[in-house]
Amino acid sequence: MRTIFYISDGTALTAEAFGRAMLSMFPLKVVHKTLAFIDTEAKATAAVNKINQAYADSGERPVIFHTFVSIDIKRIIMSSQGSCYDFLDYFVTPLSKELGIPAQPKTHRTHGIQEDTGVRENYDFRIDAVNYSLANDDGSNVANYDEADIILLGVSRTGKTPTSLYLALHYGIKAANYPLTEDDNMENLQLPKVLKPHRHKIFGLTLDPQRLHEIRSKRREGSTYASLPQCRFELQEVEKMYRREAIPFLDSTRFSVEEIAAKILAETNIERHRF
Amino acid sequence: MRTIFYISDGTALTAEAFGRAMLSMFPLKVVHKTLAFIDTEAKATAAVNKINQAYADSGERPVIFHTFVSIDIKRIIMSSQGSCYDFLDYFVTPLSKELGIPAQPKTHRTHGIQEDTGVRENYDFRIDAVNYSLANDDGSNVANYDEADIILLGVSRTGKTPTSLYLALHYGIKAANYPLTEDDNMENLQLPKVLKPHRHKIFGLTLDPQRLHEIRSKRREGSTYASLPQCRFELQEVEKMYRREAIPFLDSTRFSVEEIAAKILAETNIERHRF
Repeated sequence: MRTIFYISDGTALTAEAFGRAMLSMFPLKVVHKTLAFIDTEAKATAAVNKINQAYADSGERPVIFHTFVSIDIKRIIMSSQGSCYDFLDYFVTPLSKELGIPAQPKTHRTHGIQEDTGVRENYDFRIDAVNYSLANDDGSNVANYDEADIILLGVSRTGKTPTSLYLALHYGIKAANYPLTEDDNMENLQLPKVLKPHRHKIFGLTLDPQRLHEIRSKRREGSTYASLPQCRFELQEVEKMYRREAIPFLDSTRFSVEEIAAKILAETNIERHRF
Repeated sequence: MRTIFYISDGTALTAEAFGRAMLSMFPLKVVHKTLAFIDTEAKATAAVNKINQAYADSGERPVIFHTFVSIDIKRIIMSSQGSCYDFLDYFVTPLSKELGIPAQPKTHRTHGIQEDTGVRENYDFRIDAVNYSLANDDGSNVANYDEADIILLGVSRTGKTPTSLYLALHYGIKAANYPLTEDDNMENLQLPKVLKPHRHKIFGLTLDPQRLHEIRSKRREGSTYASLPQCRFELQEVEKMYRREAIPFLDSTRFSVEEIAAKILAETNIERHRF
């Protein structure tokens, strides 16, 4: 099987994003290997040996997605037997021309904290948002909802917690979440009173009943809570309530947490604190 | 000021990663705008109007980083007055030649769930990891440590919680975390007994005393807990203990949560469940 290497003198997150996007167009089973923080010639030489070894072992030429600040180290990687792809290199000249300033690859630390550019401030913002989302998980602190950027609403196990953590970690958004439970009288579901003053910040999540049934069964197999009729009933009631209250909502069944978060941002006007 | 647009018929996360990496090389103040899920001609036309309007308003040609599956929609975006960059397009031909198969842009959904390729399985794994990390935050459930992929250790406010959530969300790693507190007798700090059977999975975090002092002061201004001497003392003791016990550790002062997570992966052999 072909080995794909993601290599960088930094986190390699950009090389991974680049490679993942490229490979998503090719239906191919591959082995992934990330080599991060390759920031000395000795490490680069060791990386080249790994690449050449993967070629020798599999007989298939490895594919290398790389991003480097250091040209010397990049050259060592490019001397390997892999097939190398470097999108930074290709686009830097046209972009430099367009922007009218030369590139300063020293400042390339895409995922870092740059004190002088205010990124530190943004970074603290993200950590504050994570702490906020944790403290306001599962309807635990409705008194803090004034501070929320968004409040995710839904019945148990519809993805509220991972989505609010992702919104906080990735975008610096203070995302609370509130679960609708048996206590909310599912037979005649109303928007809980405590949420009414914050209605403009609420976003609903829903799910396919079969999928919810599977997820809940992993948690409490054979319970009423996990049964398909109960899941169907709760989702029906909650969706009716979203429509009645004009709360925007999303069926998250076929989406990853990244996609759910991006869809919420696209549908609302929440200010994000990070790009 | 120049406006940078990140545009896609999907989440635009790839376009953002691409653009962010490119722009990190140019010290320039810009305005960022993401237009995600531009998946109809009407939306594309509206996007073009926004691009041209930004040009008219600022007098500076907007820069467009885009990734599209649909060629028709891409063409509409490229008819705008912005300066367009598309790394997928440029690299698809050489990569196709290398892999020996044609690109199938229909399958391009980089951040999605693809049931047929096992990505759904990986996805469930990530959500399980998030639930695990939440349930095992702050030393709450040492009984579950058999299941942990990694246990982050450190004194209060050294970044354990955001790092464990990032490891879970981004890589599907079950990351517990355990705080060292006054109860652990800081004067003669030992590795807590409950952690001894799991020593091989422990990774330590530490921080610059001044920075810890600032972070703790935001939480409890003027307390002993937040005082510089106390921060210095705790960090000194914990680092001594890491060295004595041969626990790998990282000073996270100058690093973002992405960098801390990537460094931990580079230094350990934890299996990640997502690339």
